[in-house]
Amino acid sequence: MISTEVVLETEARLDKPILIEGLPGLGLVGKLAADHMIKELKAEKLGTMHSPHFPPQVIIQDDGTVRLMQNEFYYWQAEKKTQKDLLFIVGDHQGATPTSHYEITGKTLDIAEMYDTKMLYTLGGFATGHLPRKPKVFGAVTNKKHQKMLREAGVSFEKTGGGIVGAAGLLLGLGQLRGMDGVCLMGETHGQIIDARSAKSVLEVLQKLLKVDVNLSRLEKRAKDTEKMIEKARKAEQQQKAAFSALPAEGPTYIR
Amino acid sequence: MISTEVVLETEARLDKPILIEGLPGLGLVGKLAADHMIKELKAEKLGTMHSPHFPPQVIIQDDGTVRLMQNEFYYWQAEKKTQKDLLFIVGDHQGATPTSHYEITGKTLDIAEMYDTKMLYTLGGFATGHLPRKPKVFGAVTNKKHQKMLREAGVSFEKTGGGIVGAAGLLLGLGQLRGMDGVCLMGETHGQIIDARSAKSVLEVLQKLLKVDVNLSRLEKRAKDTEKMIEKARKAEQQQKAAFSALPAEGPTYIR
Amino acid sequence: MISTEVVLETEARLDKPILIEGLPGLGLVGKLAADHMIKELKAEKLGTMHSPHFPPQVIIQDDGTVRLMQNEFYYWQAEKKTQKDLLFIVGDHQGATPTSHYEITGKTLDIAEMYDTKMLYTLGGFATGHLPRKPKVFGAVTNKKHQKMLREAGVSFEKTGGGIVGAAGLLLGLGQLRGMDGVCLMGETHGQIIDARSAKSVLEVLQKLLKVDVNLSRLEKRAKDTEKMIEKARKAEQQQKAAFSALPAEGPTYIR
Amino acid sequence: MISTEVVLETEARLDKPILIEGLPGLGLVGKLAADHMIKELKAEKLGTMHSPHFPPQVIIQDDGTVRLMQNEFYYWQAEKKTQKDLLFIVGDHQGATPTSHYEITGKTLDIAEMYDTKMLYTLGGFATGHLPRKPKVFGAVTNKKHQKMLREAGVSFEKTGGGIVGAAGLLLGLGQLRGMDGVCLMGETHGQIIDARSAKSVLEVLQKLLKVDVNLSRLEKRAKDTEKMIEKARKAEQQQKAAFSALPAEGPTYIR
Repeated sequence: MISTEVVLETEARLDKPILIEGLPGLGLVGKLAADHMIKELKAEKLGTMHSPHFPPQVIIQDDGTVRLMQNEFYYWQAEKKTQKDLLFIVGDHQGATPTSHYEITGKTLDIAEMYDTKMLYTLGGFATGHLPRKPKVFGAVTNKKHQKMLREAGVSFEKTGGGIVGAAGLLLGLGQLRGMDGVCLMGETHGQIIDARSAKSVLEVLQKLLKVDVNLSRLEKRAKDTEKMIEKARKAEQQQKAAFSALPAEGPTYIR
Repeated sequence: MISTEVVLETEARLDKPILIEGLPGLGLVGKLAADHMIKELKAEKLGTMHSPHFPPQVIIQDDGTVRLMQNEFYYWQAEKKTQKDLLFIVGDHQGATPTSHYEITGKTLDIAEMYDTKMLYTLGGFATGHLPRKPKVFGAVTNKKHQKMLREAGVSFEKTGGGIVGAAGLLLGLGQLRGMDGVCLMGETHGQIIDARSAKSVLEVLQKLLKVDVNLSRLEKRAKDTEKMIEKARKAEQQQKAAFSALPAEGPTYIR
Repeated sequence: MISTEVVLETEARLDKPILIEGLPGLGLVGKLAADHMIKELKAEKLGTMHSPHFPPQVIIQDDGTVRLMQNEFYYWQAEKKTQKDLLFIVGDHQGATPTSHYEITGKTLDIAEMYDTKMLYTLGGFATGHLPRKPKVFGAVTNKKHQKMLREAGVSFEKTGGGIVGAAGLLLGLGQLRGMDGVCLMGETHGQIIDARSAKSVLEVLQKLLKVDVNLSRLEKRAKDTEKMIEKARKAEQQQKAAFSALPAEGPTYIR
Repeated sequence: MISTEVVLETEARLDKPILIEGLPGLGLVGKLAADHMIKELKAEKLGTMHSPHFPPQVIIQDDGTVRLMQNEFYYWQAEKKTQKDLLFIVGDHQGATPTSHYEITGKTLDIAEMYDTKMLYTLGGFATGHLPRKPKVFGAVTNKKHQKMLREAGVSFEKTGGGIVGAAGLLLGLGQLRGMDGVCLMGETHGQIIDARSAKSVLEVLQKLLKVDVNLSRLEKRAKDTEKMIEKARKAEQQQKAAFSALPAEGPTYIR
């Protein structure tokens, strides 16, 4: 495998779905929010993305089986006239290098374009070093016309001058080149913890914007599960790393 | 997006324009000089360059909208017989890796070649660690025949033996392989400050060479604005970075 | 050479061979086990893999001749009805970058697919920082149905939550995308030594699973030879490196 | 330019020339030896190699003109029946990354293959940390049959177990895959100085092997010139680097 590949596993009929991105990032805010929404809405799996730019490894799951690092597409079909179909991109990883972010985002937009997506919502965290009781949600848009709607849903536009790195930013920037509009919602977060409260703030805003109902009572529980899984993986990794660091080199590497 | 792309936004009629490069570099001398010239001459936008070798992010602008990292082409049509049409390449970034400098410079020359450009001026800074009241302008050429003209305009050729890294150098070197002549003008600069005075020295020389009139009175003001924008972006970045550094890894990364 | 290449040196008739991977990794457990098995079974050379992702060098062998860094395919034909043909991938190196692991693993699977391989065994070490008298063998599978057979052969499934990095993991993950099942056997190992005892534990399990007889008496001797060869290469390298570190740069590298 | 390119500047008639490599490396031994041989034999320029894997810069030469980083091919036609035509590859740089070594070496062999080269001599240094009065010359070969001839010319084969990194090694290894034989001659050298004496030892051996006469009296003088040039470039570079290190970042680079 030498470039990013998407395998679609089902044929979904979607009507100009809104793309919602929730890949790992600051405070895992976007990931927690999108993963929770997929579970609560009972969104269905659409396909899988593999990439040579993800870590070259498999994960040993609790049942002893392995799986590749991957991102996943899910979809949800609107149930009311006021709603729109939704397409989700979530998963394990963003690109490992600057260049690969462009490739992975491009492939994601290829799928969105296949379904004639016109609107993107990207979800992330915005680190402030504080742990507010009620995290704000900061916004950024590709088009000023979306600001009014966002402000009414409680989004603040006070953070400017900085950048939005990775999928949350590039989807907006590269989507614009393909004629898609986009909005980034960033939950205020401390930055050094996995932040379910910030994800909740983001989902409260997103529900209003999308006119969908997402039960938020299990969000905190899910965040705890995610945290435990990550903690376990980290311990497994550290044990191996510590042992690995002194392994003799496998051969000579520098003589001219 | 897996390689550097240029989108031309208008059809300009240009007669063998001189290409002027002012991308970010030492003291931002080249960038300040070229950006100022574009504003003062009221040069028009020709097109935009995007590249997977620019940072994978968007910038949140003051109005809350985002834009991709990008470089831009501008053009200006000669108003007198003694002048030549001008083509500018300016923008946010140079390539992030050695190899990408070659790709980005190649794409820049593709556009110049489209318009049958025969002559290149690249602008940059030359760090000396000093802050002279009247910065010198050092030169380098692809062809000795240009030295006389440059010396008469006040350019010094005392700095040799070193290299010119990035677009300012590669445009000359790769341009030569395509039959273009080129000149690099480097304003003497301290190296650790954004240096409007050095940019002014460079523009004084360039005006004489191109026989154009560029009002320099607003240059210092523009440099201050650039500096403020960069300072703001840097603060935003640092706040996020500090918060980010301790984020738990998103998964295991090293077991064999 | 700009991508990984395999040259097959003979035409072997193989019937859906099982692929066995033993490339360098933790404790060299997988490498020792697979190399030993090849020697004892008198498996024959099938072909050679070269890659621009291996270190850019040749090794000076004891007889003064040089050879490129390379991986090698070997094969062995079943001698009894209860056995299956075997295909081995062993050698000097894994990929030097995350992306190259995907390319090299992909090429390995191309060869396996040519012979209609349906099952993969990958061998490696699992570092615990301990030196047990009788190292355990930990397992991971692509399909739960293989666990019973493995448990009966003495394999433990107590290690989960972590990852399997490099060829041992990616072969399973990418093989699955091509319809192949796979098992990873990881010998418990300290992590900082070349571990023949762990390789022996792995081979004891593997023999049962494959129903082949591999004499293990010479394994320790072979591991010592490997250790000496690596030690010699490392000393040669360090001598050169120490001398090299202060070499004057070959030219200027950073001026803008 | 996105891959390594060679431009041939003349049409030389060569009869299965021997390729001689002398690119920068340990002690600059190979470079000094090959450059000197080209000058003394009055070998002629055949062509130029440019590569995106060379540093992205031009050098300002003493006359104020610039030139790209490049490697060069030279050729020399045999004058006696006992001699063979020679093809040289010399220049500024080896590849900047492991992978690029493979690409650059491959392109070099493409040219050699065009002229039906069957034999390669690669020249380099072998660091010992000592400064012997009479440096030894160590050898490595692709084929044992060449050892007798080399021993008679004074070459030692006592250094084994290590590697030969970069062009000097890869040309032998990759050349072998194309049916070419090869020999690497490594002059004993301290490792931290530019070593004309070691280059002299290498040339004394090479003269015997090739049956050519190379006046060695000017070698030391040439080495001094090379050293001065490099020293000048290094100073220019350091001045710029010191100044550069504190340049404000050109924009934000990390927020998610």
